[in-house]
Amino acid sequence: MALNQSIDLALAEQIGAAGLPGTALDAGLAAVRTATARLREDDETGRLPLLRMPGTTDDLAAIREAAARLRDATDVVFLGTGGSSLGGQTLAQLADYAVPGIGRFAEPRVHFLDNLDPLTYGALLDRLPLKTTRFVAISKSGGTGETLMQAIAALSALDEAGLRKRAGEAFLGLSEPRKPGVRNALRDLLEPEGVRFLEHHTGIGGRYSVLTNVGLLPAAVLGLDVAAVREGAAAAWEPLRSGDEAPAALGAALHVAFALEGKPIAVTMAYADRLERFTRWWVQLWAESLGKDGKGSQPVGAIGPVDQHSQLQLYLAGPRDKLFTVITTDAAGAGPAIDADLARRAGEPGFAGKRIGDLVAAQGRATADTLARNGRPTRRMHLDRLDERTLGELLMHFMLETILTGYALGVDPFDQPAVEEGKILAKRYLAGEG
Amino acid sequence: MALNQSIDLALAEQIGAAGLPGTALDAGLAAVRTATARLREDDETGRLPLLRMPGTTDDLAAIREAAARLRDATDVVFLGTGGSSLGGQTLAQLADYAVPGIGRFAEPRVHFLDNLDPLTYGALLDRLPLKTTRFVAISKSGGTGETLMQAIAALSALDEAGLRKRAGEAFLGLSEPRKPGVRNALRDLLEPEGVRFLEHHTGIGGRYSVLTNVGLLPAAVLGLDVAAVREGAAAAWEPLRSGDEAPAALGAALHVAFALEGKPIAVTMAYADRLERFTRWWVQLWAESLGKDGKGSQPVGAIGPVDQHSQLQLYLAGPRDKLFTVITTDAAGAGPAIDADLARRAGEPGFAGKRIGDLVAAQGRATADTLARNGRPTRRMHLDRLDERTLGELLMHFMLETILTGYALGVDPFDQPAVEEGKILAKRYLAGEG
Repeated sequence: MALNQSIDLALAEQIGAAGLPGTALDAGLAAVRTATARLREDDETGRLPLLRMPGTTDDLAAIREAAARLRDATDVVFLGTGGSSLGGQTLAQLADYAVPGIGRFAEPRVHFLDNLDPLTYGALLDRLPLKTTRFVAISKSGGTGETLMQAIAALSALDEAGLRKRAGEAFLGLSEPRKPGVRNALRDLLEPEGVRFLEHHTGIGGRYSVLTNVGLLPAAVLGLDVAAVREGAAAAWEPLRSGDEAPAALGAALHVAFALEGKPIAVTMAYADRLERFTRWWVQLWAESLGKDGKGSQPVGAIGPVDQHSQLQLYLAGPRDKLFTVITTDAAGAGPAIDADLARRAGEPGFAGKRIGDLVAAQGRATADTLARNGRPTRRMHLDRLDERTLGELLMHFMLETILTGYALGVDPFDQPAVEEGKILAKRYLAGEG
Repeated sequence: MALNQSIDLALAEQIGAAGLPGTALDAGLAAVRTATARLREDDETGRLPLLRMPGTTDDLAAIREAAARLRDATDVVFLGTGGSSLGGQTLAQLADYAVPGIGRFAEPRVHFLDNLDPLTYGALLDRLPLKTTRFVAISKSGGTGETLMQAIAALSALDEAGLRKRAGEAFLGLSEPRKPGVRNALRDLLEPEGVRFLEHHTGIGGRYSVLTNVGLLPAAVLGLDVAAVREGAAAAWEPLRSGDEAPAALGAALHVAFALEGKPIAVTMAYADRLERFTRWWVQLWAESLGKDGKGSQPVGAIGPVDQHSQLQLYLAGPRDKLFTVITTDAAGAGPAIDADLARRAGEPGFAGKRIGDLVAAQGRATADTLARNGRPTRRMHLDRLDERTLGELLMHFMLETILTGYALGVDPFDQPAVEEGKILAKRYLAGEG
């Protein structure tokens, strides 16, 4: 496998009372053994369709075909929030669409409108070439208010531009199939316009959907190898399915041990711009899966090296209440080279002949080492290269780790019961009540 | 003032043992009274130059002039990391540069390269029209490794394009004046090319520099009203300078009270895309200023409504260890309108005739209310409009709140002693040692 994991535990026997007691680690390992057994049972009974995704190729032709139809647009706008967007965004960063402050140069330009914001969305509709833009509206239930509003406003924009008859072609939907007696608002809205729908998997919720068409469709639009993403996922699942020393089980045991000790914060810091959305995807996965019944640690995503300048002071010298994961990639040897004469002129002879990626690689290693030297529990994960396969492995690793942690802590990692109250209240306020 | 603050404390007398004891709040208020007295002394003695920035206009002509020279470029690239970038990014979001997934339509396009990444920077240099691009390299000490590498690589790119003689015009530096006997690597690198420098304030560090030329230069390039930013800052400072009921003092007292109770996490959730970089700026300000001597809470930035779908479950149902700040703006009535017929077709008659901003406003209010109803301590801040003046006020508010919290907790909010070890280690690894 491409994902190498190593751990500096900062055990109490190594660093004293502030460290993790060995007993907590033993308890974590024991709880995760039971959780792993339950996960294998999920696999055998087919109760957890997510476990069927790694390596599967059955549906890839349909995804590629839908993507091919989208690719002749100048702009493809993905509407959908939270889990309906972050997986696709994460994969899309492997393509060149994400150069910060530049945007994608090649067409189609891909836009993820995952936040509802009146000015952003207004500006987008004003400026897109509507004749050559396609919208993909994604909502599992079809009832997500933000996505419905965005879809309605896009239809109206087509209407005002005299392009309403194009709606059937301009839109693609992605939602569950209709169920008898249950309303699907997105289908009700778009199907009368002649809009086609891809089917959202009924047994895989948003934050676990990156390996389904929800995550793979945007990836395919950007020309990424979606089969490799699934293969990579298999590389994370296979060792857990068949053995006990799997990285995901070890990671979960670590998290459970720290939860038992009441440590409230989990930090994941990745040394690559292309993993910035991955950290956001993980924040949702972790927070929404485990934050219930008074449990769940706070996930914090960070990017290196820039966040060394914003967060590392706190991590090294603040409270000892965090578990760190530092992810490094194949930065060494990559990027523009540093001219020797100019390096010397700047008083940095050590830069001479190096590449920008060499400094990034050195910084990632130095940050993990400095955390460990200061007695902060630190897990290192290194990807020998960052591509579709290894990103698929990384994504599946963290989904498995999250599920195992939930099982071991006794919380359901698949529901999100607490957010309904706010949704109901928002609709009442929108209606002018209260 | 434009910034309205109100607080649901979730006191122990209201919600029981999980709440904040009244005694902790009293202690926080007392500690912040002393801290405020110290801050006023800083003001009177001139020890804290930051306090001279609000309302000052002396240097604005020079900033505008430098910006005017940059504005005839097609692309302006700001090199600089951490505090040398986030303040400018925060202000820049008021301009239209930030439409997610689109980028700025008008020239000059402004790029902030705050993270060092070999692929991102390589792609940038390959794709920019170097003949018409300007680079602004910002480093207070001049010794920031990332910025030096970026500047060297940009010089080499100009060289390869046969444009090296353009370097004096293509670059602008922003760094402290030379001090006798102290090396300034950025000046050593760029001044021989004929590059002009603006002076970085010697008494205002990176994370507090948003009101100086570091933050205001990018804002002026984008055509923003930089005088209004300074005026807004005065609106946050004046009530604290002259009275005791200032929002910044109350906010600091709240943070100190929660620190005394051992609450480890502070969440700031803003309901506007244009405040996304503000939350990142605040994360650095808070983490780096207060994370020392085993103290400092974990700052978490969030954006609404999208992060309702990623984090709210944890906030409502996870551990009661967080203090929330929910910031809302003038979203109501803004953005594309929702067609009544389409709203009804989607089964959402409540959307009919509303605007996208109405839902955002309702969601912001609902999130704050739901947190408070669930006994989570919640501060609401509302901006009647979001513009240069109110953003200036917001930025100064949070700088003052951070300084007061540091003073009250007994930590120096202006240093960052812990990050040196990692920098030294990174240079050793880069040199192939260890």
